[in-house]
Amino acid sequence: MKQSQILLVLFAFILLGGNYAKAQICYHNADNFPLLGRGVEATATRYDRLPDSLKSVVRAPLWQLSLNTAGMAIRFSSNSTTIAARWTARFDNVMNHMTPTGIKGLDLYCWENGKWRFVNSGRPSGKVNQFTIVSNMIPHEREYLLYLPLYDGITSLAIGVDSLSQISSPKKELIQREKPVVLYGTSILQGGCASRPGMASANIISRRLNRQTINYGFSGNGLLDLEVAHCMAAIDAGAYVLDFLPNASVDQMNERAVTFYRILRERRPYAPIIFIEDPIFTHTYYDQRIAREVERKNETIRSIFKQLKQEGEKHIYLISSKKMLGDDAEATVDGIHFTDLGFVRYVDLVCPVVKKALK
Amino acid sequence: MKQSQILLVLFAFILLGGNYAKAQICYHNADNFPLLGRGVEATATRYDRLPDSLKSVVRAPLWQLSLNTAGMAIRFSSNSTTIAARWTARFDNVMNHMTPTGIKGLDLYCWENGKWRFVNSGRPSGKVNQFTIVSNMIPHEREYLLYLPLYDGITSLAIGVDSLSQISSPKKELIQREKPVVLYGTSILQGGCASRPGMASANIISRRLNRQTINYGFSGNGLLDLEVAHCMAAIDAGAYVLDFLPNASVDQMNERAVTFYRILRERRPYAPIIFIEDPIFTHTYYDQRIAREVERKNETIRSIFKQLKQEGEKHIYLISSKKMLGDDAEATVDGIHFTDLGFVRYVDLVCPVVKKALK
Repeated sequence: MKQSQILLVLFAFILLGGNYAKAQICYHNADNFPLLGRGVEATATRYDRLPDSLKSVVRAPLWQLSLNTAGMAIRFSSNSTTIAARWTARFDNVMNHMTPTGIKGLDLYCWENGKWRFVNSGRPSGKVNQFTIVSNMIPHEREYLLYLPLYDGITSLAIGVDSLSQISSPKKELIQREKPVVLYGTSILQGGCASRPGMASANIISRRLNRQTINYGFSGNGLLDLEVAHCMAAIDAGAYVLDFLPNASVDQMNERAVTFYRILRERRPYAPIIFIEDPIFTHTYYDQRIAREVERKNETIRSIFKQLKQEGEKHIYLISSKKMLGDDAEATVDGIHFTDLGFVRYVDLVCPVVKKALK
Repeated sequence: MKQSQILLVLFAFILLGGNYAKAQICYHNADNFPLLGRGVEATATRYDRLPDSLKSVVRAPLWQLSLNTAGMAIRFSSNSTTIAARWTARFDNVMNHMTPTGIKGLDLYCWENGKWRFVNSGRPSGKVNQFTIVSNMIPHEREYLLYLPLYDGITSLAIGVDSLSQISSPKKELIQREKPVVLYGTSILQGGCASRPGMASANIISRRLNRQTINYGFSGNGLLDLEVAHCMAAIDAGAYVLDFLPNASVDQMNERAVTFYRILRERRPYAPIIFIEDPIFTHTYYDQRIAREVERKNETIRSIFKQLKQEGEKHIYLISSKKMLGDDAEATVDGIHFTDLGFVRYVDLVCPVVKKALK
């Protein structure tokens, strides 16, 4: 009798204990599911942004940033009631004006009524992470999009689902892979400082257009490196977006912007190429030095654009930054880097131009 | 000759070296300037939110959170071309879904054309911090508002200005101190997860109304503690906002919500008291358990509100959460905690009701 009581207690412990829920989740290597947002195939690992051949060619900081997974996402389908993730951050980066979730977290979206809808984020605890993203769902088959870290890389990723559910590659494509929108830029394009990966501008644009975007944003390093132009030109893009002004100096623009453009144009004669003015950073209302710098940069890009037009260049666009950040000065965390509020406003301005250019 | 050359190099080093700029900045103890956002005077330190008398009375986690400076701000006036800050965070807190700038940073606003305008944030590096918030300004006299950390406290704060400039208490009041709006709530009200202190809802409301707000948001602890009600009732409030549903359970509401209300009403017979429904958290679209919980909580508050109305209670309001977060499901970092996008939407809903109630 006593023995059976002990067994009963033991059974109840196993059944109700903390390990019960975990035991129900089965992890599947994300390498087996399709990846979106990688411009070129010939990378050293699946989650690099630049081809391995550029490793000893490009500047070291640029290469280092190319190991961040900004703009990448995993597509899968599942009828699980729970979606969890295990992942290892490549660098375990930390920043003082961005959430760890945006830096090295994950972000899950689901296809609902013809749109991608935010499900929940995967919040990191450090280098090695495990997080239950969503639970208690009705066991319907759903199409998912899982965004990868913006300011870190990953060395492993597994997606957890109920052990009795199914997980597979997507049943429907949904996001057009061909003719992606290829964006080149700075920390802001890379996603600084979105609260979670899905709120980076390139990712919002991808959802709004249902089309793959390639994020070549390199924090502090949108300096018109011509190797990146060649890499971008190798992609059969639907459109190119060039948003390098927050980093490139007037001298660098005068020296290389036209060359950068011609590298793209030579290989892709009909692709729309969209230049974007420097944001009128909110603190330029006070900081006179930065205000003059933004003004000079914008005069420079306008004059470069005018020159290209005069030379008969077609399929080129220039987006003014006048209305980019709204009129309340509230859309940045530090005067420069956009919050989710800033990214939504940016995409409201930029996306219609891209959409029109794609037609 | 050689000696004079050495002296020249030494002089150039001192003049052009990194210490030159710093040497120009003179720091002034912020304790000498007026503080906004503290409900009661009788606190142990200047930057506590609850009176010292409650230290051994309230629950320990509530007391701990009362040492966070959520909703507090320093007012000052200066004609400096640079504003810097030195501050020590009380706990050096870290969170995985909020920026360090929001948790333990500072946030500077300036009075411009009848409105408070974001200047820039003070980004923290850890426990002990020094940051130049803005530089290169025209040396005009300006009125400033410097928000303190949302999820940490401070043990010291000094404001740095050009050594030859002036800094003083404000020349104009600008923000009405009397009849403040006193808000009670949870992690969301405390400011989770604003990118910087100025974007917490209570701080946005204060700027929109030009009126002091008192932030009694306690992360995970908006559990209708009656001691907090007594503390709030002691304040001659213009209005009370009660936004506790994200924490309080149905049982806790049924047990204490009316008592909490009556404590306020007894002492303040004519003050508007505004209840706010539980946000329809974006992940409730998927998580059926949380969806039911939100529904049950909102049914409960509606029934409590109806009961109060039927008993003839006046000056009470209930804000529906139906349109609180917009219709794109994008306004949170984790399904629950608002980003700046969420806070702006929340304030767009709540502020007009508060404004009307204040009339």
